[in-house]
Amino acid sequence: MKYSINAAGREVVTEINGESATPFQGVGKYTPRGTRHAPSISSCSNYPADGNKLVKNLREALENAGLKDGMTISTHHHFRNGDYLANYLFDVAHEMGVKGLRWFPSASFPCHEHLIQYLEDGTIERIEGSMNGPLGRFVSEGGMKGMGVLRSHGGRYQSIQDGEVKIDIAVIGAPTADFFGNSNGLLGDSACGLLGFALGDSQYAEKVIIATDNLVQFPCIPWQIQGNHVDYVVEVEKLGEPSKIISGTTQITKSPDRLLLAELTARFCDAAGIIRDGFSFQSGAGGTSLAVGEYFRKIMIEKGIHARFARGGSNKYLVAMLEEGLVDYILDGQTFDLEGVRSMVENPNHVWSSPFTSYNYHGKGNFAGLVDVVILGATEVDLDFNANVVTHSDGYLLHGIGGWQNCLFSKTVILPIPLFRDRVPVVKEKVTTLCGPGELIDVIVTERGIAINPLRTDLLERTKHSNLPIKSIEELKAEADRICGLPDPPALEERVVAAIKWVDGTVMDVVRKVNTS
Amino acid sequence: MKYSINAAGREVVTEINGESATPFQGVGKYTPRGTRHAPSISSCSNYPADGNKLVKNLREALENAGLKDGMTISTHHHFRNGDYLANYLFDVAHEMGVKGLRWFPSASFPCHEHLIQYLEDGTIERIEGSMNGPLGRFVSEGGMKGMGVLRSHGGRYQSIQDGEVKIDIAVIGAPTADFFGNSNGLLGDSACGLLGFALGDSQYAEKVIIATDNLVQFPCIPWQIQGNHVDYVVEVEKLGEPSKIISGTTQITKSPDRLLLAELTARFCDAAGIIRDGFSFQSGAGGTSLAVGEYFRKIMIEKGIHARFARGGSNKYLVAMLEEGLVDYILDGQTFDLEGVRSMVENPNHVWSSPFTSYNYHGKGNFAGLVDVVILGATEVDLDFNANVVTHSDGYLLHGIGGWQNCLFSKTVILPIPLFRDRVPVVKEKVTTLCGPGELIDVIVTERGIAINPLRTDLLERTKHSNLPIKSIEELKAEADRICGLPDPPALEERVVAAIKWVDGTVMDVVRKVNTS
Repeated sequence: MKYSINAAGREVVTEINGESATPFQGVGKYTPRGTRHAPSISSCSNYPADGNKLVKNLREALENAGLKDGMTISTHHHFRNGDYLANYLFDVAHEMGVKGLRWFPSASFPCHEHLIQYLEDGTIERIEGSMNGPLGRFVSEGGMKGMGVLRSHGGRYQSIQDGEVKIDIAVIGAPTADFFGNSNGLLGDSACGLLGFALGDSQYAEKVIIATDNLVQFPCIPWQIQGNHVDYVVEVEKLGEPSKIISGTTQITKSPDRLLLAELTARFCDAAGIIRDGFSFQSGAGGTSLAVGEYFRKIMIEKGIHARFARGGSNKYLVAMLEEGLVDYILDGQTFDLEGVRSMVENPNHVWSSPFTSYNYHGKGNFAGLVDVVILGATEVDLDFNANVVTHSDGYLLHGIGGWQNCLFSKTVILPIPLFRDRVPVVKEKVTTLCGPGELIDVIVTERGIAINPLRTDLLERTKHSNLPIKSIEELKAEADRICGLPDPPALEERVVAAIKWVDGTVMDVVRKVNTS
Repeated sequence: MKYSINAAGREVVTEINGESATPFQGVGKYTPRGTRHAPSISSCSNYPADGNKLVKNLREALENAGLKDGMTISTHHHFRNGDYLANYLFDVAHEMGVKGLRWFPSASFPCHEHLIQYLEDGTIERIEGSMNGPLGRFVSEGGMKGMGVLRSHGGRYQSIQDGEVKIDIAVIGAPTADFFGNSNGLLGDSACGLLGFALGDSQYAEKVIIATDNLVQFPCIPWQIQGNHVDYVVEVEKLGEPSKIISGTTQITKSPDRLLLAELTARFCDAAGIIRDGFSFQSGAGGTSLAVGEYFRKIMIEKGIHARFARGGSNKYLVAMLEEGLVDYILDGQTFDLEGVRSMVENPNHVWSSPFTSYNYHGKGNFAGLVDVVILGATEVDLDFNANVVTHSDGYLLHGIGGWQNCLFSKTVILPIPLFRDRVPVVKEKVTTLCGPGELIDVIVTERGIAINPLRTDLLERTKHSNLPIKSIEELKAEADRICGLPDPPALEERVVAAIKWVDGTVMDVVRKVNTS
């Protein structure tokens, strides 16, 4: 294994699964060359004249698509922890006796623990994609043959577009579809809202299979995936478990600690002049993030102002703001609850977006840079404001990157995080795994103080006369260490089990095997 | 100039403007090889961080885009005969002193007569695209330096997608746009409904310029052109003349002859069992076509049935059918009147389509084959049911192909045409210019009888006991010749002034210079 020290000072691999990899060169420093990936030209003469692309079942579709050893198979994660399809897909691949596949999901979840048997028996050689929970633990302990690759949502689109990852077969679960392959996630028992995480797959994969449990007469309206990209359509009984695909309801945290983080975050934004008429924001669907949104809402009502747009993940709170006229548009990437789906179906101002529009760094711009303030999480931050979202301080890879790296390009990035978790400090000397460079992270909000990145002299200036508990990041670290003591470093071996890509496809860091002996 | 006899028996060129060209090989017989065109990979690091891509004016945008001699510049024709932008664009190119450009419009109109001066002075070397009216006459008389190339709407998308035509700079007029380049044709003084004819241009051109006369705050919702494809945005005073972009109202023909054609067409469809519950149809916006739609409407009401979808060009009659519940969906490619635009803005069942979804023959299927019946026009048909839509019988190139070739893949293709025009027979021994092969054309409806293509034994069988005036095509020709006499063949020279492409990029026929001496 060859290593190189990248521009962030991290020792990274220069080869990943037999292909050369470029070390991170600094934010905005790497200029891609060459042309986008170009799939083969198709011809209508090879497709049914009447538009009916239905085949008997997934096995027939995979056979027709030419599934063979070593291929790259992609799936999307809009069904989250309720997904049945990815498990079923690899059951079929296993039954066909295919080996050495690369699974390229937009993310994997605890429900995909089922696939560990196929990582063990060689059906799947490696996973490139977020590995939340059990699969991450399996990888951390050295169980996966190939090296994992973690990319942001935008980085995944970039890797497909640039031909860094060539998808042989995309298998796209579609809550509603017609026989031509036009599909949406809005309707049907498995409704998940959007299908944007499968957009790049549909555009660039050599073969595209739509699997649906709600086949409707042509035309399926609206279409989010265009049938003109689709080779085969199959009916399956159930794509997933509806209650786990979309929660019936999302809830704001009731934890006093987290409510305090949220309140401090909102007060900071207010003091810094960020919450002004026509501003824009993005805040996740976690309990703290939802609470930040609610504090924003109160401030906006008080001031009599509104936001031009909010970026989703959408949820009932954001939908309420849209419907109250506090937000002109939701630019949504995924829906987290039933209200999000309802609004997306009914309201033209609840707009579909995708990793292409919002996050692809190798586009002609993207939406991330237009957002005034984004509220994100992290497992660790360090004295340089670098942050980690994928590993815990014990070195275990347990979370995906999602859109996190992409959102760092927003005008102001705030991480409301507790100063420690289970008596382990969250502010460290150096993060265990580097996911986002500190120069893009502006503010750390903890229950014991707010640290502003010294690069943001404007924010320091604007909040210096506020009554907010502004401290240095060093002060926050000292306080955490005083309370928790300095934790032991993680017990890691030499072997690299996964690479962390930056938004431009370069290698930002690596994850090493945890020593379990 | 080298020639070859193609599969339709036409002598065609094997080289067009210095590039080799493949002769037509038969319907569905040509298999494309290779991969789609791949534009250069971009990077957000080269675009404004705040998303603001506005530049001072079109000249600055063209300069930034690197306009130079010999480049290919594309425009769209959604502004039809009211377009100002293409003329203005070449005024600027002329002012910059650029020479030898290839203009690649999706169509040109009489309003573009202004550009003849630039064809004469060498600013524009050639036009590839429909040339309606004066430009066609100019080309027919040998005035254009390079060879013209005519493609269908789907063929144009195919040529862009396949890299047959590489667009250096696309200049897209957008009735509404934001500074990031998100655009639509729905709102603003120059509203034209859709921007689908510019879709391929936005996806595949190296540089994309949006010109708008209605700049709105980000985000421009809905977006039909995605800002993520756009390099520069410029404001212009007026994109076009609203009354010529969209007609205030479309009108059904009042001509008794044309009403008869329409009635016979509808009665034929009824007798042939085509008008049944859940069927689909496409009929243009000409007076006869509109009348066919109205006859369909009456039949549907009488039978108590409805259509699953109608393909647009939309107009007030089609919109009325949608709103009455006689049609579930309009799959629209362009709007012809204000009612079409209104409906598209208001009604989610009035659906945007594009040459990609509906017509691209080098996709994984397209919508054309799913349409039960399509009503088209023609300037000439011949005894083999071959048809011509671009030249008159005197050899003059005066019309574009539009979606006509693409629509020939519908399940039943009907041409309601007068038996003669200005005492020139429309049914000929051989068409002057071959645009569509007879095997795809099913029925010719004239005021003096209906001819069914002998290949369609099913239609012959189903209508044989009807009281419709079914005749052979030979009988129709004999009748026309008896009335008009046999016309002189057109006076043509050897020189080829334009090539007619088939939907797969092969050469179906050529247009020769008219002898004006």
